Amino acid sequence: MRLCFVLLISLFTSSLVIADPLPSWVDAKSKQSIIEFVETVTDSSGDKFVPVADRIAVFDNDGTLWSEQPVYFQIFYALDRIQRLAKEDPSILTSDALKAANKGDIKAVAAGGMSALTEVINLSHANISVTDFQADVKQWLKTARHPGTGLAYNHMVYQPMLELLSYLRDNDFKTYIVTGGGIHFVRAFAESTYGIPPEQVVGSQLNLAYETSGSSSRMVKKPDIAFVDDGPGKPVAIDIHIGRKPIFAGGNSDGDFQMLEWTSSNKLPNLAMIVHHTDAKREFSYDKKSHIGKLEKGMDQAADRGWLLVDMKNEWKSIYPE
Amino acid sequence: MRLCFVLLISLFTSSLVIADPLPSWVDAKSKQSIIEFVETVTDSSGDKFVPVADRIAVFDNDGTLWSEQPVYFQIFYALDRIQRLAKEDPSILTSDALKAANKGDIKAVAAGGMSALTEVINLSHANISVTDFQADVKQWLKTARHPGTGLAYNHMVYQPMLELLSYLRDNDFKTYIVTGGGIHFVRAFAESTYGIPPEQVVGSQLNLAYETSGSSSRMVKKPDIAFVDDGPGKPVAIDIHIGRKPIFAGGNSDGDFQMLEWTSSNKLPNLAMIVHHTDAKREFSYDKKSHIGKLEKGMDQAADRGWLLVDMKNEWKSIYPE
Repeated sequence: MRLCFVLLISLFTSSLVIADPLPSWVDAKSKQSIIEFVETVTDSSGDKFVPVADRIAVFDNDGTLWSEQPVYFQIFYALDRIQRLAKEDPSILTSDALKAANKGDIKAVAAGGMSALTEVINLSHANISVTDFQADVKQWLKTARHPGTGLAYNHMVYQPMLELLSYLRDNDFKTYIVTGGGIHFVRAFAESTYGIPPEQVVGSQLNLAYETSGSSSRMVKKPDIAFVDDGPGKPVAIDIHIGRKPIFAGGNSDGDFQMLEWTSSNKLPNLAMIVHHTDAKREFSYDKKSHIGKLEKGMDQAADRGWLLVDMKNEWKSIYPE
Repeated sequence: MRLCFVLLISLFTSSLVIADPLPSWVDAKSKQSIIEFVETVTDSSGDKFVPVADRIAVFDNDGTLWSEQPVYFQIFYALDRIQRLAKEDPSILTSDALKAANKGDIKAVAAGGMSALTEVINLSHANISVTDFQADVKQWLKTARHPGTGLAYNHMVYQPMLELLSYLRDNDFKTYIVTGGGIHFVRAFAESTYGIPPEQVVGSQLNLAYETSGSSSRMVKKPDIAFVDDGPGKPVAIDIHIGRKPIFAGGNSDGDFQMLEWTSSNKLPNLAMIVHHTDAKREFSYDKKSHIGKLEKGMDQAADRGWLLVDMKNEWKSIYPE
């Protein structure tokens, strides 16, 4: 009988602990809408019930799950790696863009446009195996600190979004990251930081090659961008990687517009949300005029399209985890 | 107390029903090796235990999960669709290759090489939304019959492999298809036929575009092959879609060689198997000299590499489901 009691308790525990699934969210419109949505699509007696297989939730990463100012964190990684490589062999700095990168002069790199950025990415991200690259990213995350906050980059994730990811998963959603960032870069920390396994991380890609020599084989990142997972690339990547239309999407910039639009076109009940960076004090404040994470079209159309505009300042009790 | 009894029964039932997980396999080397492998990696008290997250199993489709003779079934679909399209508008047959396709003259199409094949694929697979395309494939599967067996194509799947897929899933493996065939084509039947959801089907791709007009949006298949999921492309696709090295791989031709090699390079315990088509009576018999599903390198190296060579004739009690 004692065993029976233990069995019964363990059956019911999971439903008891999710009394408030989103404790860092102020009890305002966004939280209420999200909870109402999840309760509606998981109510098997209702007419808006969505089967588990279709409970696909997709999230942008930069600016949606973690911060992205003053530049995408992956750029900080690229410069750091170039500096480390150049220390060993300064002759790799073969152009003005690479020399600027080595000095940490992000403005000069940016002024060089796409060709300068490609040079920086190729030197820092290519001609390395996926295994070695991800080990390097993990090591960097352990030691590198954000110039503004002094925090480790993977501590600059949004506590309310971590709660949202867990809440969705507790309700049998499959949570995906669909990021403009590099697929291998984000996979290096997505599982430990967000609880999202590599097969559920979709991102931009460099070329990739399978190489063998003798009895050993490796997967090698090669120069040049093969796929940009941004804008219309996001729904394309969702189709290729997931093959189902999501019912939940979270983004923060116009690069997420098409992903939200695609999700909203689902015939099943769906919810799209935009994280609006309104909190200059606790995080950053930017939207229409920002050089990174520009949010103009999404802001203008959110109300008409029924997308949630999440006001970070007024709807989030905390930003980063304690 | 009765409730307790029901709970306990339901806990143990799952282990009772898998007494013989592979009833269509002869109790010979392949079956024994597979079962030994699965029992070893799922034994949490052993030193070869593999955590659930790493239990990734990948399978080729053509010739591994279903038949592929006299030509890949997707080619039959392509010709059928061209014939249907040409009936409505004969002016679409703008080349010798397309005219041959319309006559069902596979030899003439093959003689035209890659450019002829691309023409056929573009006309039959492109300029159509993914939704419409997959509806068309599903409809075709309902009515089309294989010229040799008279069976529906999705009934020409291998019963022993269906059992293997289920057995692996019962042991918390995640089963993937990694096919040289088209990703959207195979996804159209993979879930109903193999129990494999779209997000676990990786394949070759045409170009793909996200298109909107007014308030509607669609995912459209576009001309020309963007990715060939064959040979070294298979491990590349596995990295992009899964991000983990598999511990189980099944193939049948040299196009699967690198996928098996990559799987075998896993530091975790792993098993690679090749379906050897030895059964001219019940299926087809071919290997080194075949124009489709050629198996030469894999056959020569299987023993040295410790790969299972599954003898269809002598190790499978049945081929297709009843």
